[in-house]
Amino acid sequence: MSKTAVNKILKPLLLGTFIFGCFVTLFFMYFKPSTSWPYGPIESTIYTEQVKIPFFSRSNKSMTILLVWLWPYGQTYDLTACSSIFNIEGCFITADKNLYNISDGILFHHQSIADDLSNLPTLQRPSFQKWIWMNFESPSHSTNLPSIAKLFNLTLNYRQDADIKVPYGSIIPSETKEDFVLPKKDKLICWIVSNWKKDHVRAKYYNKLHKHIEVHTYGRAFGKRIPDKDLNSIMASCKFYLAFENSIHKDYITEKLYNPLSVGTVPVVLGPPRQNYEKFIQGDAFIHVDDFNSPKDLAEYLMLLDENEEMYLGYFKWRRLFKVKTVHFWAEHTCLACDYLSRHKEYRAINDLDKWYRG
Amino acid sequence: MSKTAVNKILKPLLLGTFIFGCFVTLFFMYFKPSTSWPYGPIESTIYTEQVKIPFFSRSNKSMTILLVWLWPYGQTYDLTACSSIFNIEGCFITADKNLYNISDGILFHHQSIADDLSNLPTLQRPSFQKWIWMNFESPSHSTNLPSIAKLFNLTLNYRQDADIKVPYGSIIPSETKEDFVLPKKDKLICWIVSNWKKDHVRAKYYNKLHKHIEVHTYGRAFGKRIPDKDLNSIMASCKFYLAFENSIHKDYITEKLYNPLSVGTVPVVLGPPRQNYEKFIQGDAFIHVDDFNSPKDLAEYLMLLDENEEMYLGYFKWRRLFKVKTVHFWAEHTCLACDYLSRHKEYRAINDLDKWYRG
Repeated sequence: MSKTAVNKILKPLLLGTFIFGCFVTLFFMYFKPSTSWPYGPIESTIYTEQVKIPFFSRSNKSMTILLVWLWPYGQTYDLTACSSIFNIEGCFITADKNLYNISDGILFHHQSIADDLSNLPTLQRPSFQKWIWMNFESPSHSTNLPSIAKLFNLTLNYRQDADIKVPYGSIIPSETKEDFVLPKKDKLICWIVSNWKKDHVRAKYYNKLHKHIEVHTYGRAFGKRIPDKDLNSIMASCKFYLAFENSIHKDYITEKLYNPLSVGTVPVVLGPPRQNYEKFIQGDAFIHVDDFNSPKDLAEYLMLLDENEEMYLGYFKWRRLFKVKTVHFWAEHTCLACDYLSRHKEYRAINDLDKWYRG
Repeated sequence: MSKTAVNKILKPLLLGTFIFGCFVTLFFMYFKPSTSWPYGPIESTIYTEQVKIPFFSRSNKSMTILLVWLWPYGQTYDLTACSSIFNIEGCFITADKNLYNISDGILFHHQSIADDLSNLPTLQRPSFQKWIWMNFESPSHSTNLPSIAKLFNLTLNYRQDADIKVPYGSIIPSETKEDFVLPKKDKLICWIVSNWKKDHVRAKYYNKLHKHIEVHTYGRAFGKRIPDKDLNSIMASCKFYLAFENSIHKDYITEKLYNPLSVGTVPVVLGPPRQNYEKFIQGDAFIHVDDFNSPKDLAEYLMLLDENEEMYLGYFKWRRLFKVKTVHFWAEHTCLACDYLSRHKEYRAINDLDKWYRG
């Protein structure tokens, strides 16, 4: 082999090898695999009958494992949404009871266990594991609390004094500068209600109110069911909406408030006192039945607003800077529970659930 | 130039350029700058007189800016510890009031403003900005609450129903398998106390207790000040420590409990009811004065434990799996406040601070 031939082959080979070496070194210096990388795609246990056991054990500290013990109201939901939808990293959510012993937390939906305690695990609770009580019904509609008063480590609830607090909705800064456009209105007051009980405060109030002003009523209670897809458009077509809670409790402010706010309808609220609402939303965004001495006075005020466009539009001032965010049942709750577990390793025990919740 | 010469120069050049191109492409595909990178090192405003204004404005959404309005009790602390010590990313903490208008939150220590409301900002509050009320004194020692009852957006407190809840300490899983070694004991009961008021429940209890059993007393109240560096060793040398709170309030469980627990001394607590303590620590880790009909009965029980090693050691069972974590005043509180702001953009208003705190 001549010297020229050696040069011809060796030089580019050496140069290439050197540059390739540099590239490999730098690549591994800066490339960090995403947390999900070593495990491969995690498949939802809902959609696949064959549950894939992830390649980790308790020794893998980077993942927090949360086991959904029973589906809330038997209703399945996507368990793989924490990172992609809610921007919560490091969570593995499962409904596979085989993972009980390595789970950092177990999520119990109140209604799934309260009515049949035999639905509870019959295994020892590892010292690192937290049992989470999740409930979004008000105290009036939550049964059997005394029998589980000392069972859990954490509460997940709409209440602001819960360990993991998840309100039904919230008012957040709107990032766009788009002006809010009021939807076209062809009705004054609307109410959609499924569950009618004559003893409910809201039923009594309505019975008095509709004597003074017409209320467009919909829903099972009035034999006028409407498909889910039409709810928003009907609500938006009304100037006011009766955001009447089924029972009156601290912080129990539900989608009945956030839905009309979201579509551009003024909510007339019946629930906890005005001061409680004003912790979460601007005081000029809603009308409270307590602001009036009687349903008749409220009716008169609503008629006044109907005549006075400027006064009515005052109820949308908050929309200049804010918008509504509602919560995604139950995927968001589950991810927030897992996120809480990953941040809070401290010992915690609930020993007065009944007293705490029913006051 | 001959064909061979062209080959000799061009081939390695082309190959090199190609590989280099691949490297550059891959490098920028995978290399992500750390969040602090564009800003350069952020210097603490405490230690540098010349405050460096960071290179960001409100349009930089990745950083949350928290302004410490006045140093708690005039005491400065490191504002740069969020990432390095507390593992909280994306926070810029400042004490520079020039950054008021771009701050996501303003942190007010109760004592710094309650006694002189002229210490409050005299500027409009931007719609995105949250004012945080921080207080770690109990309601009994918090003055002037009615005058600031509607001023804030968030509470930062030891109480579990605060928006940002930071207890004085917590019990966390111990990751090491090292066995706990009981320190050498040469005293039965100790108490270190600075603030003596004869009307305090704890003073009244002590006055009765020490008639039945010797209590080794230290601190300003007893004219026996001890240097900070000796506190732990004195505490550790006692079998029991009087963890008597200065006032009795829900969740008001302070370092008076966590310090003896941490050094290996059994706390005898006087504070909220046992059930309240048991939310945060194992029921067999402490003795509650309420467990006894009288100080005399307590004294007799402590003497019994002094005679019975096995019974005494039972109070350390929790140490097999857990250890104590205390909170870093005020750096940890500040970082947790900033972390909360970065996760919670929703509208919030406190309109009953006085009622909430004093109950």
